[in-house]
Amino acid sequence: MTRYDIAILGTGPAGLSAALTAKIRNKNFILLGSKDLSAKLQAAHEIDNYLGLSKVSGSDMASAFTQQMKDMDIEITEEKITAVYAMGDYFALQTDQNTVIEAESVILATGVVAGRPYPGEEQYLGRGVSYCATCDAPLFKGKEVTVIGGSPKEEAEADFLAEVCSKVTYFPLYQETPHFNHAVEVRTEKPVEILGGMKVTSLKTDQNEYPCDAVFILREAQFPGQLVPGLAIEGTAVKVNLQMETNIPGLFAAGDIAGLPYQYIKAAGQGNTAVLSAVNFLAQKKRKAA
Amino acid sequence: MTRYDIAILGTGPAGLSAALTAKIRNKNFILLGSKDLSAKLQAAHEIDNYLGLSKVSGSDMASAFTQQMKDMDIEITEEKITAVYAMGDYFALQTDQNTVIEAESVILATGVVAGRPYPGEEQYLGRGVSYCATCDAPLFKGKEVTVIGGSPKEEAEADFLAEVCSKVTYFPLYQETPHFNHAVEVRTEKPVEILGGMKVTSLKTDQNEYPCDAVFILREAQFPGQLVPGLAIEGTAVKVNLQMETNIPGLFAAGDIAGLPYQYIKAAGQGNTAVLSAVNFLAQKKRKAA
Repeated sequence: MTRYDIAILGTGPAGLSAALTAKIRNKNFILLGSKDLSAKLQAAHEIDNYLGLSKVSGSDMASAFTQQMKDMDIEITEEKITAVYAMGDYFALQTDQNTVIEAESVILATGVVAGRPYPGEEQYLGRGVSYCATCDAPLFKGKEVTVIGGSPKEEAEADFLAEVCSKVTYFPLYQETPHFNHAVEVRTEKPVEILGGMKVTSLKTDQNEYPCDAVFILREAQFPGQLVPGLAIEGTAVKVNLQMETNIPGLFAAGDIAGLPYQYIKAAGQGNTAVLSAVNFLAQKKRKAA
Repeated sequence: MTRYDIAILGTGPAGLSAALTAKIRNKNFILLGSKDLSAKLQAAHEIDNYLGLSKVSGSDMASAFTQQMKDMDIEITEEKITAVYAMGDYFALQTDQNTVIEAESVILATGVVAGRPYPGEEQYLGRGVSYCATCDAPLFKGKEVTVIGGSPKEEAEADFLAEVCSKVTYFPLYQETPHFNHAVEVRTEKPVEILGGMKVTSLKTDQNEYPCDAVFILREAQFPGQLVPGLAIEGTAVKVNLQMETNIPGLFAAGDIAGLPYQYIKAAGQGNTAVLSAVNFLAQKKRKAA
């Protein structure tokens, strides 16, 4: 298996900026995210304070960024990372396809998740709460599960669960009507809490309570502390210093995930700093090994 | 006299980025620097890692930035600031024309000065060492002075000193032959130390020693600790936190002056953060006053 020098998580301005500098520093890196870059960016009306792009729309900015990635031969790998584990000498990144990507260093640039975890979510993580249908479906074969879907993209995951579980109830957090190939019950209620004893026993909504063995919470992005066990958090942001170092050596954060202000140019700047810190980290590691 | 909400010192990427956001936040600000932006930027060959401008030359980047300032109706004021004084409730910025600009908050984005102060420079500051010919010439009327000139722009300053001082010896730190209208002696020797007792007595070079009452050190930019009395420095950089706050309330720093890495996009990102911190500072001040 290839072990990358650097894995960059996220294709907003922070991740793209990091990738540019990883490229010119000749690092073997992987840029993980969406070929559409960032949903938030695409939706922006006019951005007047990104130095270099005058009065630009979000979609024009995204086009400029996409072209620049092509100019620099930078590929985007469309894999969703559900967990990052610090293994001591390297990082193991678990994908939602239940595969693992290895990297010597990691840059977290996945943006911010709106809102907060559900009550019970953190408490029951690994005891019924899951962020990865592909990974954890086998654990709930023949059981009843609930799925909170952050976007229509997650419907395929619920469909897959319906193949193995006895009952799947789906709670869309969006307006569009969900479509499934298998028997999935859709409830347009608002999930409010995850209940249980030793393990999850039910999902409570603003209207009902749904007994279940598992709650799959499928968001566009994850809360950083859930993504990386052991990561120090301050408020809702990853705790970083000016060099974008986190409390975990070799792990860096940049952009919205690293705190306010939520601004494109600030994210791009921090992505640059983070990857240069990763480059330094790799050089030091090499020197120590020599 | 107008008291600006924000004075932005420097027209590299950090200062320009700060100005864009000051503008969209409707602040009354002044952007101080050079209409040519930054000499370092203009000289850059190709920049491959500025997100938004693909494989751009330094001069093309400068053109894009200049156009963007025009698009946003942002003026650059060509005044050189020789000192920033924290007056408690506001800041007084002394120009090299011996005028004063007042501002509620200040963003330092003047870049880095190559090298270090000369031995004796900090010791004799205000006792013969000066950074401002216009300001301090009257103190040395009829006296012998030396001038260390960082660029041909400084020749006018030496010329002015020659009008009032009995003897002016000029040490260019550049290749071009200096031109003067008055009697200025040029020595292409390398200044190495400023000597004195209670006050400056001479300038020592790699070849000779020049008795004088004053040494005018005219650099493109100043070491930050000299520019702002009381400013906390770490190594050669202004000490800042993630919000680009310095140890002086209302004073922020961004870009190269705030430390490594020296990168355009990082500077632009920090300029954005700094000005948003200034905006917050102004809002809090207003609330307290209310």
